[in-house]
Amino acid sequence: MRFNNIQAIVSVMAAAAIASTEASAADLSSPGGIVTVHADVVGGVPVYSIDYKGKPVVKTSALGLELADGPDMTGGFKLIETTTSSTDETWHPVWGENSSIRNNYNELLMRLDQPEHYRKMNIRFRVYDDGVGFRYEFPAEGVLTYFIIKEEKTQFAMTGDHTAWWIAGDYDTQEYDYTECRLSEIRGKMKDAICSNASQTQFSPTGVQTSLQMKTDDGLYINIHEAALVDYSCMHLNLDDKNFVFTSWLTPDAQGNKGHLQSPCHTPWRTVMVSDDARDILASNLILNLNDPCAYDDTSWIKPVKYIGVWWEMIGGGKQWSYTNDLPSVKLGQLDYTSTKPHGQHPANNENVKKYIDFAARHGFDQVLVEGWNVGWEDWFGHSKDYVFDFVTPYPDFDIKMLNEYAHSKGVRLMMHHETSGSVRNYERHMQKAYDLMDKYGYNAVKSGYVGNMIPRGEHHYGQWLNNHYLYAVTEAAKHHIMVNAHEAVRPTGLCRTYPNLIGNESARGTEYESFAGNKPSHTTVLPFTRLQGGPMDYTPGIFEMDMKKVNPQSQGHVNSTLARQLALYVTMYSPLQMAADVPEVYNRFMDAFQFIKDVPVDWDESRYLEAEPGRYIVAARKAKGGDDWYVGCTANEDGYESALSLDFLDPGKKYEATIYADAKDADYLTNPQAYTITTKKVNAKTKLKMKAAPGGGYAISIKPL
Amino acid sequence: MRFNNIQAIVSVMAAAAIASTEASAADLSSPGGIVTVHADVVGGVPVYSIDYKGKPVVKTSALGLELADGPDMTGGFKLIETTTSSTDETWHPVWGENSSIRNNYNELLMRLDQPEHYRKMNIRFRVYDDGVGFRYEFPAEGVLTYFIIKEEKTQFAMTGDHTAWWIAGDYDTQEYDYTECRLSEIRGKMKDAICSNASQTQFSPTGVQTSLQMKTDDGLYINIHEAALVDYSCMHLNLDDKNFVFTSWLTPDAQGNKGHLQSPCHTPWRTVMVSDDARDILASNLILNLNDPCAYDDTSWIKPVKYIGVWWEMIGGGKQWSYTNDLPSVKLGQLDYTSTKPHGQHPANNENVKKYIDFAARHGFDQVLVEGWNVGWEDWFGHSKDYVFDFVTPYPDFDIKMLNEYAHSKGVRLMMHHETSGSVRNYERHMQKAYDLMDKYGYNAVKSGYVGNMIPRGEHHYGQWLNNHYLYAVTEAAKHHIMVNAHEAVRPTGLCRTYPNLIGNESARGTEYESFAGNKPSHTTVLPFTRLQGGPMDYTPGIFEMDMKKVNPQSQGHVNSTLARQLALYVTMYSPLQMAADVPEVYNRFMDAFQFIKDVPVDWDESRYLEAEPGRYIVAARKAKGGDDWYVGCTANEDGYESALSLDFLDPGKKYEATIYADAKDADYLTNPQAYTITTKKVNAKTKLKMKAAPGGGYAISIKPL
Repeated sequence: MRFNNIQAIVSVMAAAAIASTEASAADLSSPGGIVTVHADVVGGVPVYSIDYKGKPVVKTSALGLELADGPDMTGGFKLIETTTSSTDETWHPVWGENSSIRNNYNELLMRLDQPEHYRKMNIRFRVYDDGVGFRYEFPAEGVLTYFIIKEEKTQFAMTGDHTAWWIAGDYDTQEYDYTECRLSEIRGKMKDAICSNASQTQFSPTGVQTSLQMKTDDGLYINIHEAALVDYSCMHLNLDDKNFVFTSWLTPDAQGNKGHLQSPCHTPWRTVMVSDDARDILASNLILNLNDPCAYDDTSWIKPVKYIGVWWEMIGGGKQWSYTNDLPSVKLGQLDYTSTKPHGQHPANNENVKKYIDFAARHGFDQVLVEGWNVGWEDWFGHSKDYVFDFVTPYPDFDIKMLNEYAHSKGVRLMMHHETSGSVRNYERHMQKAYDLMDKYGYNAVKSGYVGNMIPRGEHHYGQWLNNHYLYAVTEAAKHHIMVNAHEAVRPTGLCRTYPNLIGNESARGTEYESFAGNKPSHTTVLPFTRLQGGPMDYTPGIFEMDMKKVNPQSQGHVNSTLARQLALYVTMYSPLQMAADVPEVYNRFMDAFQFIKDVPVDWDESRYLEAEPGRYIVAARKAKGGDDWYVGCTANEDGYESALSLDFLDPGKKYEATIYADAKDADYLTNPQAYTITTKKVNAKTKLKMKAAPGGGYAISIKPL
Repeated sequence: MRFNNIQAIVSVMAAAAIASTEASAADLSSPGGIVTVHADVVGGVPVYSIDYKGKPVVKTSALGLELADGPDMTGGFKLIETTTSSTDETWHPVWGENSSIRNNYNELLMRLDQPEHYRKMNIRFRVYDDGVGFRYEFPAEGVLTYFIIKEEKTQFAMTGDHTAWWIAGDYDTQEYDYTECRLSEIRGKMKDAICSNASQTQFSPTGVQTSLQMKTDDGLYINIHEAALVDYSCMHLNLDDKNFVFTSWLTPDAQGNKGHLQSPCHTPWRTVMVSDDARDILASNLILNLNDPCAYDDTSWIKPVKYIGVWWEMIGGGKQWSYTNDLPSVKLGQLDYTSTKPHGQHPANNENVKKYIDFAARHGFDQVLVEGWNVGWEDWFGHSKDYVFDFVTPYPDFDIKMLNEYAHSKGVRLMMHHETSGSVRNYERHMQKAYDLMDKYGYNAVKSGYVGNMIPRGEHHYGQWLNNHYLYAVTEAAKHHIMVNAHEAVRPTGLCRTYPNLIGNESARGTEYESFAGNKPSHTTVLPFTRLQGGPMDYTPGIFEMDMKKVNPQSQGHVNSTLARQLALYVTMYSPLQMAADVPEVYNRFMDAFQFIKDVPVDWDESRYLEAEPGRYIVAARKAKGGDDWYVGCTANEDGYESALSLDFLDPGKKYEATIYADAKDADYLTNPQAYTITTKKVNAKTKLKMKAAPGGGYAISIKPL
């Protein structure tokens, strides 16, 4: 692990080891005294609880693991020693919502002994003012070296029947719409919470995914997730809905086991964020802080990316990734595409891609994604096919050399696309040649995909095997100075701090669902509380034509958003990778609104959450990296929202002009989504703005110094 | 597929399509009229039977497959058409027992329809004078494209309670001693037939492996195996021991399925060899002939290899693959071996390897295998460890550059060793760099290994996933002009014809077991009938010190062979890769006998089996490739054997000197194994030789023109 790019460690307080001479229960509070953890061993069982400003957040909850190849580690423990220390440092991410991040916590290390089995286990807590992270550590001492996890049994005992924003627990998909309900109602709403997916495996009628956002009746916002998921299986939560106790539920492997570990090692951090202000949950850096510093010496090649792509035409427009209808069954290497008849619905062709390149160059986009450029799409999906793509052979109508040269001549890059169909052995076998091809033609970013059931068969998208693969793809890409945006991969857990060429993930229901069946209008008011806690999402906003029938007569889809809100998402959905997902023809009809997408940065010096309530609204303001411009975005649910903004984040000594992209008075996400107004206004740090978001609407503001 | 290296196709008879206007049962005989197949559809079920010189060999037996994802393909068939054709060609292997091989068969193609399910299936029979091959073919026509095999249901109905030489059916090991008994006795002898192995999974009390050798009471030798096992799971046989009917039993994947197929495709060939002369079974080229021609344009880089190695010291001598005792648990990349204390029992060190190189150079060996050269051996086995080796990092005492340069300066190469511990994802991830390292230092052959349970977990050594991997390792190696000798891989099925850089396999109980617990004295009289049918075995003969206690006081092992027989194995156990497995110190004590090992070639123009009876004795004579020397070898079981040899294979116009390495009169594999005589004698084509093999003994003769 290398620390070179932590440019300023402000202070690391000497880790003052306060070893108790006689180990006993320990309380540890956060640096500001806001959050307190109580840790103990009761009747041989390690337990913990969490308070926030004196209020219980997590009641006494058991900790431990069941093993598949030995006695469980759920009891019989003795507390040997507790040690506390404090850290206060500031680090600078390669890209992010803020150019500097403070990492300030108090730490408690509980050393445990399981004398009957001669085994040792540590539990390490880090207590922040906005929450807690803890993990199990397995030292090399003792007899535990190789072990197999049957199940991790980490409890999170809630204090009541909280309101939750949740999606169904599933080993293979995260692409569900969020449901808002009481914990006691999850079981009854589970059936409706599940829609079909190319690969899906639920495990419990009360199983949910993390990051799970909750709110208590007395106004506490609680969020459970994990950080630094490396070489371990992804955690779900299973709810005891009589007692409101969540227990960890890991993703199994092909044999039903949940992890193969070798000491010394540790689990990912289990995280509980808490605040009485919803905005603190959005602003929290707890997940990133719990991850390791950057692993790369040189990160100069990692650049945020704004891009367009040959994609929405296929997602919403009825066009095809494939090239021909002549090949219902494809065996790569045994056929010659040049002798097949093109079906003529293949937009990844030279002429069309050049059109996108021209558009990208004209409007200042960095890259053009092209999906469907490579052979195999006639037969890519749903058959557990092993050799499904080779990742290097273009279709006859895609001249990879010419198109890259053409793009580069215009200051634009093409973005690579690697759909794997879940066949990861095949992908790993071709990975080096695929990355070599990217090097050869000047690609520096790849969108990868894992649609369908996994190969090796029996493995799941979020198991240890695949989690290991996703990170392998990222670290191998780094050797080629390639950035990775992996779709259908495991939900992020802050690993982008350590591996910042992981510039995006999907891992939730993105804009594509608007063309399939729609997302709830509240969707983008939930995602920043949940999915985005772990890292950026390639949400692909910027759809201006909401009525999918106008794009494709066969489509039933409707984009559940106003046009103004589509602009706002570039601010509210933080990502260093942002797509303008609609087609150039549509943008050409709305060039005035499109200006915001052209202007909005993809990297920031500072971010503020001005107003927020999960499922209702989010208003964010961000200052451009290395600039003085600010951008504000608001997304609202189906009720709309009225903001009272104070622009006190602006430099008091400066005057600004604000360009306001707002819903028109009669705008409505369902009936009148394209009604927007664009106004300009002189503003300064004392300005108060009354803004209104229509139902399913929002607004976007660019604020530039005069 | 490329055919360039079939240097002489003598004749391919025009494939005379004799389509029946009304399809009905078909009989097809071999070119010499010796073997006849009868094929039919009875009550919707495809069936076949086989006769040999009018005697039934396989009684009417059903054909078909059960599917996991659709209706079975075991009935409801209609016979649409039968087509016959004939082929007579001669091809020249890159290496082999003979420099030219005749492939002469009549072929019957049965086209079947399963009208209820709109599916088609063909069954193709090839009938040779020494047996039959048949396979299922799934054409692209019809609705069957992707399908999952639940079980292949190919019957082999025997005519009686034959004697069989068998090992227990197992998904993960072939390293069992052979049992000779009646079919009806298999169930009762199963328990004793199984010994422990690092990875083993039996499936039935009457399950056996192929190649299965049998003998009928009226003197027919019958052998069941398979040919060209590619992208399919390996077949075992399950016996109905009331009716003496074997049914195919495939190796399952992690989900219990037995194959994922995509049409057009076909199964491997199922083979039944038959003769009334046991020598014909040994001399048969049926398995090779059923494989595809060589897939490589250039094979000039493929060379048979005679080698010694740093190996028996660890197998039998108590030395270690590992370097230190300081690391009971190893995480590669996280430790520095140079700071550990060597345990001093690591023979893969510079000094010792140089000693082997010197010995190899002095005695004309091509290569020196070095096992234990690379880091990780302290913790390589038994823990389902994923990242177990990196295949590129030498131990501190192994100077890979110096040793290769030293070897090359003496006209010797080092042989690479890649133990994978069954972690094949890890091996595939490192494979290119491992092969690159071999290129860099001038290695051109690798011994690979797959000890222990497989990763991906739940997969078996002989399932489709791994079979795909073994072939991938071979074809990727070919790109680097590297030859592969894979241990613990699936039993060979003649693929060395198509991929002749597959110069060896283990896939049975080799000489190493002599140091563990011994093989039955009859072992080497069975292997050529069974294991060697599919391709060469790296049996590692040449052990001169039979009493393992003299090598390692801790050892209980005893080599169940006389020294003379150890020489004979270089002739009786055909392989283009032959090791002299004992240590130089031992060979130095027996330099007169060692001369035979120095002399014996590893490639041949012609081979003859002079005398043979499974489980009793084998006498083979072979003529050196491109030379006039002949070599004769005899191996006998615990009863010994008396040969009456006619040297009529010699050139009638030439005189020869024979050097005879024989058991001394009082030799015995248990009590006096090192008693041998070496005599010379003038011989010619009219010479008759009476030779005697001691119990567990044999003899070896080199015959050189004067």
